[in-house]
Amino acid sequence: MIIAVLNGPNLNLLGTREPSIYGFETLADIEQSLRQVGDELGVFLEFSQRNGEGELIDCIHALRGRADGVLVNAGAYAHTSLAIRDAFAATAIPFVEVHLSNIFAREPERRHSTLASEALAVLSGFGAFGYELALRGLVRALARD
Amino acid sequence: MIIAVLNGPNLNLLGTREPSIYGFETLADIEQSLRQVGDELGVFLEFSQRNGEGELIDCIHALRGRADGVLVNAGAYAHTSLAIRDAFAATAIPFVEVHLSNIFAREPERRHSTLASEALAVLSGFGAFGYELALRGLVRALARD
Amino acid sequence: MIIAVLNGPNLNLLGTREPSIYGFETLADIEQSLRQVGDELGVFLEFSQRNGEGELIDCIHALRGRADGVLVNAGAYAHTSLAIRDAFAATAIPFVEVHLSNIFAREPERRHSTLASEALAVLSGFGAFGYELALRGLVRALARD
Amino acid sequence: MIIAVLNGPNLNLLGTREPSIYGFETLADIEQSLRQVGDELGVFLEFSQRNGEGELIDCIHALRGRADGVLVNAGAYAHTSLAIRDAFAATAIPFVEVHLSNIFAREPERRHSTLASEALAVLSGFGAFGYELALRGLVRALARD
Amino acid sequence: MIIAVLNGPNLNLLGTREPSIYGFETLADIEQSLRQVGDELGVFLEFSQRNGEGELIDCIHALRGRADGVLVNAGAYAHTSLAIRDAFAATAIPFVEVHLSNIFAREPERRHSTLASEALAVLSGFGAFGYELALRGLVRALARD
Amino acid sequence: MIIAVLNGPNLNLLGTREPSIYGFETLADIEQSLRQVGDELGVFLEFSQRNGEGELIDCIHALRGRADGVLVNAGAYAHTSLAIRDAFAATAIPFVEVHLSNIFAREPERRHSTLASEALAVLSGFGAFGYELALRGLVRALARD
Amino acid sequence: MIIAVLNGPNLNLLGTREPSIYGFETLADIEQSLRQVGDELGVFLEFSQRNGEGELIDCIHALRGRADGVLVNAGAYAHTSLAIRDAFAATAIPFVEVHLSNIFAREPERRHSTLASEALAVLSGFGAFGYELALRGLVRALARD
Amino acid sequence: MIIAVLNGPNLNLLGTREPSIYGFETLADIEQSLRQVGDELGVFLEFSQRNGEGELIDCIHALRGRADGVLVNAGAYAHTSLAIRDAFAATAIPFVEVHLSNIFAREPERRHSTLASEALAVLSGFGAFGYELALRGLVRALARD
Amino acid sequence: MIIAVLNGPNLNLLGTREPSIYGFETLADIEQSLRQVGDELGVFLEFSQRNGEGELIDCIHALRGRADGVLVNAGAYAHTSLAIRDAFAATAIPFVEVHLSNIFAREPERRHSTLASEALAVLSGFGAFGYELALRGLVRALARD
Amino acid sequence: MIIAVLNGPNLNLLGTREPSIYGFETLADIEQSLRQVGDELGVFLEFSQRNGEGELIDCIHALRGRADGVLVNAGAYAHTSLAIRDAFAATAIPFVEVHLSNIFAREPERRHSTLASEALAVLSGFGAFGYELALRGLVRALARD
Amino acid sequence: MIIAVLNGPNLNLLGTREPSIYGFETLADIEQSLRQVGDELGVFLEFSQRNGEGELIDCIHALRGRADGVLVNAGAYAHTSLAIRDAFAATAIPFVEVHLSNIFAREPERRHSTLASEALAVLSGFGAFGYELALRGLVRALARD
Amino acid sequence: MIIAVLNGPNLNLLGTREPSIYGFETLADIEQSLRQVGDELGVFLEFSQRNGEGELIDCIHALRGRADGVLVNAGAYAHTSLAIRDAFAATAIPFVEVHLSNIFAREPERRHSTLASEALAVLSGFGAFGYELALRGLVRALARD
Repeated sequence: MIIAVLNGPNLNLLGTREPSIYGFETLADIEQSLRQVGDELGVFLEFSQRNGEGELIDCIHALRGRADGVLVNAGAYAHTSLAIRDAFAATAIPFVEVHLSNIFAREPERRHSTLASEALAVLSGFGAFGYELALRGLVRALARD
Repeated sequence: MIIAVLNGPNLNLLGTREPSIYGFETLADIEQSLRQVGDELGVFLEFSQRNGEGELIDCIHALRGRADGVLVNAGAYAHTSLAIRDAFAATAIPFVEVHLSNIFAREPERRHSTLASEALAVLSGFGAFGYELALRGLVRALARD
Repeated sequence: MIIAVLNGPNLNLLGTREPSIYGFETLADIEQSLRQVGDELGVFLEFSQRNGEGELIDCIHALRGRADGVLVNAGAYAHTSLAIRDAFAATAIPFVEVHLSNIFAREPERRHSTLASEALAVLSGFGAFGYELALRGLVRALARD
Repeated sequence: MIIAVLNGPNLNLLGTREPSIYGFETLADIEQSLRQVGDELGVFLEFSQRNGEGELIDCIHALRGRADGVLVNAGAYAHTSLAIRDAFAATAIPFVEVHLSNIFAREPERRHSTLASEALAVLSGFGAFGYELALRGLVRALARD
Repeated sequence: MIIAVLNGPNLNLLGTREPSIYGFETLADIEQSLRQVGDELGVFLEFSQRNGEGELIDCIHALRGRADGVLVNAGAYAHTSLAIRDAFAATAIPFVEVHLSNIFAREPERRHSTLASEALAVLSGFGAFGYELALRGLVRALARD
Repeated sequence: MIIAVLNGPNLNLLGTREPSIYGFETLADIEQSLRQVGDELGVFLEFSQRNGEGELIDCIHALRGRADGVLVNAGAYAHTSLAIRDAFAATAIPFVEVHLSNIFAREPERRHSTLASEALAVLSGFGAFGYELALRGLVRALARD
Repeated sequence: MIIAVLNGPNLNLLGTREPSIYGFETLADIEQSLRQVGDELGVFLEFSQRNGEGELIDCIHALRGRADGVLVNAGAYAHTSLAIRDAFAATAIPFVEVHLSNIFAREPERRHSTLASEALAVLSGFGAFGYELALRGLVRALARD
Repeated sequence: MIIAVLNGPNLNLLGTREPSIYGFETLADIEQSLRQVGDELGVFLEFSQRNGEGELIDCIHALRGRADGVLVNAGAYAHTSLAIRDAFAATAIPFVEVHLSNIFAREPERRHSTLASEALAVLSGFGAFGYELALRGLVRALARD
Repeated sequence: MIIAVLNGPNLNLLGTREPSIYGFETLADIEQSLRQVGDELGVFLEFSQRNGEGELIDCIHALRGRADGVLVNAGAYAHTSLAIRDAFAATAIPFVEVHLSNIFAREPERRHSTLASEALAVLSGFGAFGYELALRGLVRALARD
Repeated sequence: MIIAVLNGPNLNLLGTREPSIYGFETLADIEQSLRQVGDELGVFLEFSQRNGEGELIDCIHALRGRADGVLVNAGAYAHTSLAIRDAFAATAIPFVEVHLSNIFAREPERRHSTLASEALAVLSGFGAFGYELALRGLVRALARD
Repeated sequence: MIIAVLNGPNLNLLGTREPSIYGFETLADIEQSLRQVGDELGVFLEFSQRNGEGELIDCIHALRGRADGVLVNAGAYAHTSLAIRDAFAATAIPFVEVHLSNIFAREPERRHSTLASEALAVLSGFGAFGYELALRGLVRALARD
Repeated sequence: MIIAVLNGPNLNLLGTREPSIYGFETLADIEQSLRQVGDELGVFLEFSQRNGEGELIDCIHALRGRADGVLVNAGAYAHTSLAIRDAFAATAIPFVEVHLSNIFAREPERRHSTLASEALAVLSGFGAFGYELALRGLVRALARD
């Protein structure tokens, strides 16, 4: 089983980016932790991070026929991008949406996710550990089907 | 460490209640699974389910000074109750909000949670397994503090 | 055939409660009239009245597997309660919503019913006689299925 | 006592028009059933159906001084016509509004009735049988005055 | 194959009506051009124009069982009439909506079409030539089914 | 100079229609008073009243090339009809909008006029005398051009 | 009979202020014309113009017990001032609201008058001549009472 | 004279509940202070606190025919409960609404009170001392009638 | 301790201004009563009333460094003036907002106060006696700090 | 004459992407059909597809001074991108907007096009055949100028 | 060239008014700095500050025919006053709007300027130095014409 | 001191792009003028222009630890992009937002900036000269800290 972990704009700066909100762990730290969970669960993980909406769509397209599921933190695009939601619908790959901070406790424009209506599940506010929970949840859901 | 698991209106009917949306597992099944995870994590779990808003508030008050955290599925009250959010604020017990279905992919009136702005984290759409993920996330968050 | 007649908050005060709006008949008067219609139609009627949202949910749950249909006047909860609507959806008991006054000719906050989208039918403005009409309509609809 | 039964746009197609929503009974069937109820109640019924808003207003004007009450299913005009509501107010004939389907469970633009604030009562979702219930309710209300 | 071409209010004045917006071609010119396209495509065309909402509904009803499709420019009723949309739904005749001007570049109240959600397709801004395009598109769509 | 006086739905009932709002003068009374003013101003007046939106549009079309201006009380259509506004724009006849009652002091749905943005001037609340004022204002405005 | 003519902010600049919108007549011209009409109608006129909201309120207060009616063009305050509306309500002097331009055909923020719901009548778009019409209408209305 | 003092959800935790917002005084402290004022004013006070909406309604019903007025702090239900407002309307007991914090300076969802339109008066932001002011105001108002 | 009592537009007419809403007491009556309470509490009172927004701002500025608190009834400006709120913020003088009528039970445009988010407390509906309550509350709050 | 055919995000997946909505034809199929029409009309066609908003803007810029018109299906960006609309305005190349599905019959967020107010014409719901119609319409419009 | 610098309500308190938002410089400091820039640019400056809306309008009127441009900080009136915008339109003097704080980063009610749609340019957030920038920008713009 | 000047979509077309709105100066002209100001102020300037949202984010990231401030004209993205705002927040580089035209006097969708709430200051409507003013303002603000 192959799971893609896709990160959106500004997440390359994790660890130094507003750490009081997003924590001190870097994307590399998260990758390392997730790989351990992936090994435990017997799934292979592929990581990518893009700042561009079109490039994220390219990534999702490239996963068609290869990935069994996607773990996505689309950053600010989660609140605005219909095109990324369409990319998931077009490729029909099941995905879980994860956010580091609890977006429902932040500014009004962050309390809504455009992606969520196509997502399998949404998870928000567990910090870096949320990726691990999301991975476990996604793998369980894929196994159930 | 004591964690309370609090379920709101109509969740006593789980298993038979619109199973295409909420799944076939009963609240007893969820309790059993959670107890195993609780044992693994070394936390003690207390379960309650109430259909009344005031009774849920009573439950939360009763946890003050006893529970270290709460796992709450407030059902429909999650979308309407300011008083339950106040109860959490008043007792200052950290809590994680969990939903069986992905509320963000349902009717408009379910896409917003009144509790979420006080919650530590929110998790929605993983079915019964979401309780386990939420428990792991809550315990991790409490341990971090 | 068993039909439950469920009345919500403040309806216990019928007859004395703002009679220019709600009329002079008491809940007991309505019960008496309805029993006659029930006898005529060959259906058995069960009456309850609760002021609490959670208690109304408890009542609905208790009807599962016993009542064939519900006649409900949820009072003010008709305008605000998602949890009662969920209770009907969870038990899958067909129901008709009745209001004494014409709620569509009153204050803006009373012109919308949260329950109505799950109801079989809605009837508003016929005063106490509306219960009888609703009962006839409900029994006819159940017989049709 | 004379009661007019007034039907609005597209109701002439009843029976063949989207029967899963509006049922298989034709307007003639409804007329026949209603006449029986009219006989039982000792009221004389007059039927008309018009597709035009202005023609419905003409009908209502023509009833002034002749009809004691009106049973109206204004079809789509119920959601948009202020002029028909004005016609009822101008002639001061009491009326009951009836809808075959439960308009409160349909598309958002059908969940509001422009007529309802002038109506004596509203009844929605009982199918063709709703006309009979509405007639009984209207006659009872007129008798009460 | 019979296609009806239905024009709504004020379109009888085409050619002299605000020609900077609607062009200099009259309805007769459009009819002549369309007949040529109809001949080319082997479909028979029927034209009508009405200023009244009810009369347009009458026209649509009259097409039931006779026309295979409708080309409709409902003029201002496109923005306000639920009853005409219902007439199309009631007769179940497939239709294409056409507008001379680009309604999406005009006043806010013209940027929304009430009919469009029932239409097969919508076409707006090609002037008189839009009728020809709409006819070709409609015939192709009907042929496909 | 020819001025048309056009009255919309329910205005044929003037004098008996809710006289506390619309006054006791009939349309014939208003016509008589206006004819005197017309004679004084040297303008010829043509009167019509229609209950249908399409018929009002027909009337306006028929005035093209004959009337120099229109005095219109479109009744409830003033609040909803885009098609009548289009008819004025299509014929390019200058018009003044008149209302018997002060529509800005009535229910919210009457506080906005769809016609007003195309009107030369609007006048509301002077009762039957408002027709005379409107006629004087219209004639003065036409003379000015 | 004493009628006060009250003008609000920026109306002192009439004649030079955006004449394509407000015309070339000055406030003095309007005063002169109005005096002639006043003489004809046998009413005495008092004129004032103020740019300040508070000063307009002072003017209205000063008219209590002295003026029988007010003709007011409150300029931009018509769209925003609740305090001026209160001044009219507090003094209970009947007033007619007049606007030079047709405010209902201008920017959205000018299409609503805060004063209008307390006014006897509203008149908008007749230019300077509108003051004369308003005066005639006001005197007629006062005479009627 | 008997005045009931009714407290809603979470107010049992006063003194320990977010003291920076709600102060350090407990409900018992407030009761003690109020009793002194009651003695001074010669009115008898009855206290109750409930966390449930239905239970608060029960309390209000029980006061019918016994209490002359109610001092109510409905907590979060003040912002959401139509049923409690109905209970006051149904029993027709005059009441004053009191809030410890200034609700108009808090989160948007707390800036509106559903009860206020039925209240005699509203008082918000004086902390525990507000109960005393409200009692004095209520007694004065009752004496005035 | 010096407390300023500031009254806004139209309050100079108190006693004669819509007495069914605002009562029969004049501003002088209120001043007299308040002075007695001031003497009792040992605070010196300064009264002013202005109809202009700018003049009220001037008054507030003049209180800087002299008044310890302000009791303000800003009349209609309470619903619209950001500049008066800024004046309070700029001078940093604590203030209590008072309204004679219960503004939350009046027209929609009066149910919101622009000042309230900066106020210490708000009190509405106690009539003239509300000034006394507000004064007691303000003095208590100032004493507490 | 050179016409550019520009396709936006996810349209590279046509044929396999949600075929029940978008059909089974691929972008290559559409290109082939369009080339035939282009040959018939004597226009040269240039095709491009991009998933990125910025890349689509680059494409449009590159067409300046070379293409006579653009046929654009901007996919989801049609609903959100102001920058693409600006690119068309900046280059002043006339364009027609095409959509495969009838966007006005889909989810609310797809019923509005940000581009449409700058477009020459809009065409939605004819499936792949819509490109051909749009091309014919665009060429006709360009020929007319 | 004469440039007027006009300051609105509460700006006379600059330097002591919420200095964390508005800075420590007084209006006199700003005047002194601006005079130096005025000398450098060869323009003569006139300063005024008013707390009243009407007085600001008087100031603007007085500048007609004398000032070539206006630098205006209308304080809170920038967010509410249509009358001041009208004063600028009426006198046709070009103006630049300046704000000390970045109003777009403050409370929602401050994020919109009613004046801005008539302004030449807007500048917000540069503190006292913003006046100098605005002066340079205004002079440059006037020189360009 | 290093200041980056960042331009967004379509700004590469400056000089030829709708010159009546954006002026005749090219980006190269602006760069040349700005370099002179930079030399005068002793700051080094770096210029970039990108049409893609992701590429602009990449640019901002690349400035971290190198630029002291950013002058940004994000073009249409200013109205829609949360991700660019996040990039500024993530890198914590102070920035000033500049617009050539006065966006507050344009179409509604351009009157709001998503970036502005994170910006140091905003400046809009001074044309190309606005860049110079913004640079001076930014350097002054950075020097102040």
